[in-house]
Amino acid sequence: MDDWGLYIGRFQPLHNGHGHAIKYIISKVSNVIIAIGSAQHSYTLINPFTVGERVKMIWCFLKDENLLDKCILTQVPDTEQHCIWVSLIKQHSPKFSIAFSNDPFTRMLLEADGCIVEPIPYINREVLNATNIRRLIIEDGDWKSLVPKSTVKIIEEINGVERIKRLYALQNKA
Amino acid sequence: MDDWGLYIGRFQPLHNGHGHAIKYIISKVSNVIIAIGSAQHSYTLINPFTVGERVKMIWCFLKDENLLDKCILTQVPDTEQHCIWVSLIKQHSPKFSIAFSNDPFTRMLLEADGCIVEPIPYINREVLNATNIRRLIIEDGDWKSLVPKSTVKIIEEINGVERIKRLYALQNKA
Amino acid sequence: MDDWGLYIGRFQPLHNGHGHAIKYIISKVSNVIIAIGSAQHSYTLINPFTVGERVKMIWCFLKDENLLDKCILTQVPDTEQHCIWVSLIKQHSPKFSIAFSNDPFTRMLLEADGCIVEPIPYINREVLNATNIRRLIIEDGDWKSLVPKSTVKIIEEINGVERIKRLYALQNKA
Amino acid sequence: MDDWGLYIGRFQPLHNGHGHAIKYIISKVSNVIIAIGSAQHSYTLINPFTVGERVKMIWCFLKDENLLDKCILTQVPDTEQHCIWVSLIKQHSPKFSIAFSNDPFTRMLLEADGCIVEPIPYINREVLNATNIRRLIIEDGDWKSLVPKSTVKIIEEINGVERIKRLYALQNKA
Amino acid sequence: MDDWGLYIGRFQPLHNGHGHAIKYIISKVSNVIIAIGSAQHSYTLINPFTVGERVKMIWCFLKDENLLDKCILTQVPDTEQHCIWVSLIKQHSPKFSIAFSNDPFTRMLLEADGCIVEPIPYINREVLNATNIRRLIIEDGDWKSLVPKSTVKIIEEINGVERIKRLYALQNKA
Amino acid sequence: MDDWGLYIGRFQPLHNGHGHAIKYIISKVSNVIIAIGSAQHSYTLINPFTVGERVKMIWCFLKDENLLDKCILTQVPDTEQHCIWVSLIKQHSPKFSIAFSNDPFTRMLLEADGCIVEPIPYINREVLNATNIRRLIIEDGDWKSLVPKSTVKIIEEINGVERIKRLYALQNKA
Repeated sequence: MDDWGLYIGRFQPLHNGHGHAIKYIISKVSNVIIAIGSAQHSYTLINPFTVGERVKMIWCFLKDENLLDKCILTQVPDTEQHCIWVSLIKQHSPKFSIAFSNDPFTRMLLEADGCIVEPIPYINREVLNATNIRRLIIEDGDWKSLVPKSTVKIIEEINGVERIKRLYALQNKA
Repeated sequence: MDDWGLYIGRFQPLHNGHGHAIKYIISKVSNVIIAIGSAQHSYTLINPFTVGERVKMIWCFLKDENLLDKCILTQVPDTEQHCIWVSLIKQHSPKFSIAFSNDPFTRMLLEADGCIVEPIPYINREVLNATNIRRLIIEDGDWKSLVPKSTVKIIEEINGVERIKRLYALQNKA
Repeated sequence: MDDWGLYIGRFQPLHNGHGHAIKYIISKVSNVIIAIGSAQHSYTLINPFTVGERVKMIWCFLKDENLLDKCILTQVPDTEQHCIWVSLIKQHSPKFSIAFSNDPFTRMLLEADGCIVEPIPYINREVLNATNIRRLIIEDGDWKSLVPKSTVKIIEEINGVERIKRLYALQNKA
Repeated sequence: MDDWGLYIGRFQPLHNGHGHAIKYIISKVSNVIIAIGSAQHSYTLINPFTVGERVKMIWCFLKDENLLDKCILTQVPDTEQHCIWVSLIKQHSPKFSIAFSNDPFTRMLLEADGCIVEPIPYINREVLNATNIRRLIIEDGDWKSLVPKSTVKIIEEINGVERIKRLYALQNKA
Repeated sequence: MDDWGLYIGRFQPLHNGHGHAIKYIISKVSNVIIAIGSAQHSYTLINPFTVGERVKMIWCFLKDENLLDKCILTQVPDTEQHCIWVSLIKQHSPKFSIAFSNDPFTRMLLEADGCIVEPIPYINREVLNATNIRRLIIEDGDWKSLVPKSTVKIIEEINGVERIKRLYALQNKA
Repeated sequence: MDDWGLYIGRFQPLHNGHGHAIKYIISKVSNVIIAIGSAQHSYTLINPFTVGERVKMIWCFLKDENLLDKCILTQVPDTEQHCIWVSLIKQHSPKFSIAFSNDPFTRMLLEADGCIVEPIPYINREVLNATNIRRLIIEDGDWKSLVPKSTVKIIEEINGVERIKRLYALQNKA
């Protein structure tokens, strides 16, 4: 049966909320297309990691969770031409019948193009969001319990903590 | 052990030569990053399939061959600025220590950037190349035995044979 | 007699102030080139409508006012290279001998390129400006009396009120 | 009644074949959106005229033929990402329910996006095509009887004959 | 001896702090590549001058100081893809063995690419910075003593004072 | 006296014909702006060298000939929008009053924008052209006597001979 659902996120970084969302979507459709958004961005406070680093975070998570055979990874850049963004998604993805998103702008653009969009139940939303996790990284808080183990390892390999702290220092100075 | 190799191709379409190459590279390194080149192109005779369609071809092949836990899929667009193409690859990929390619231009640009590049042994090169397979599709020849079963299925689902024939007719008329 | 004047605006949306300006310019030159600026933008609070939707607003207004034979519609995208913006206008327009604008930045760039620029008398400027009209749309105020009838119809056809309200909600949340 | 049809062409230059096509489409739908394709190109042998010059050609023709109240003019650039071209058309156009085209590639991309596309009956196709008209301009043949009077006037105003001859000489030298 | 150092700045405008930095770098390496950053920007309050105007400022300074045979001028645009910016620098520059910069983001991206980066001693940093000089220009303060004589002359030739004041007025109004 | 002339070339590579042209232009105007065209291209048979490598070739030549105080170096990318190319030149150059070029397309675009363009007397044109020099490099002919000594040195430092031969082999194979 060929029943593909789209899931878009920026994964800056991948955290347990994304993990829950992926599992939820797998319970609803046979296959999930995980699309990494804002693919061209990196080395900003909001988008610290390259798309290549984010690909690795997601792939390692899927491997550890035995989900590789349910999930297909792709990427989509941002565009200032909001009206063509959905066609960029379609270019970068296998055909999908439904999209899952809680982001109101993503929903708006997908719906304007005629896509069906469903929400994803939140789990502990105040804590499990990437802004909070980046804040905890900056403040040496406990971010490691909020992301997959493999993500911790990848962030450490690429000196991601130092990168985010430097990006934060930059912003505060400018 | 973290020993990643890069493999770049256009996969227009994925064929058994690519399959052999992937298995060869897996025999040399622990993990393969499969990067889909010319990612922005589709609906031309040389690049008939979208990057989303090619992602699906490769993922289905890897799934059928039980290789999903060795291979990580990514994408890289062409750029007219040849000198920055390798940095685009690096942006779109996890870190790799070696690249595998038989394409002389790919080798040239990777080597100019200081990467180590190794060739891949060819298997039946005269037959197993995408130009020949697209020709066979146009001429109703036996292309199906040269590509993975899942690729045949995907090409049929998206009316790929008709697409390639129309693109061929266009070119011959123009 | 060939005496063309340029009029640039974003028309987000077209309102009666634009209508007055167009009639004023027609009283000064034989033909008006109406150039829709920021052509690539849409689905933002500042630029909610696509260039195609704005083309329709202006064309319907001109039709209702019997001005189609005086006015020629074109489009020009924004560019971060401010210095080449006037050459983009020239590429997208028939030749013009004078430009009309009250926008200081538009005036500055046109004058830097050697164009003659004249101001347009304002009519009820505090009310008749697009920012105010978008605000009235958000607050369910009386925006309909401030725009041409055909513009009201077009905005309703495309669910423009809901679109602007959603874009406003997005911004306030982010 | 709101029954809009799309007509795309490059209009290099506008000729009587385009004129017939526009009238044919008007006989089928209430309104025609005339979209100038390859909008970013000019000063090549294939695309000698700027989009601004082509806008003027079409507008003057429509004015002389009393068709301005049936036809709405817009523009669409080419993109190397063929898969998103139709979304560019949609961004630049009011909503349309049908497209008219004889160009096989335009038909292919529109149909791949789910649009209805109908052909346009040809009138004297061997003579009335832009390639032939540019050839006649180069060879000082009788091109003036094949294009609207206003187009002759515009081409003369902008020294279009000399431009095309210079572009032809360039190509033959290179 | 071939010992090239890179120095990147925006030079909006060139001031005596840049002059000191150039002389400092010349004392450390045999040749300096002076790269003008944000090359595509102009006519903004932060980047008022075109890259062509900035090229002239630097060249005239080097000529007056007899430094032309030590310094080579190049340009590099900004890119939203931070990860490829260093490869853009490399494309636009002769090979260099060391870079000099006090800008933390420039340092960060160069170091992430493996470049050696050294700081430059500041001279009177509170006064000798381009933001302060643009402020003095806006307020009719004494900016002329803080920039090379040739820069004063160039700014006056291009009506740079009026340009910056207009850009400032624009921003305050918007 | 401020009398600036523009000279545009691709300098692939710099050869003695360019050297003669620069000296000729210096005999006509007080200062020469040398603009490197096709700045974004490299690693093609037609454009083998990066703009950074070409900057170095020209700068070293000017230094050896004691011409650095007459000549200012800049760069300009190609654009598919031919109509805005001259505005790109103006953005990247100090103001100039005259341009020197023998290239018919460069002349055409500059003249269309209202610039004065003068030809440059050829010296031994059949031999002193970059196409011939690249051919001699491929065939191990005597190219070294046709380019400045410093250019020979730079080409050798960057393995330019091997690069051109590989690019030639690529083309012949493709």
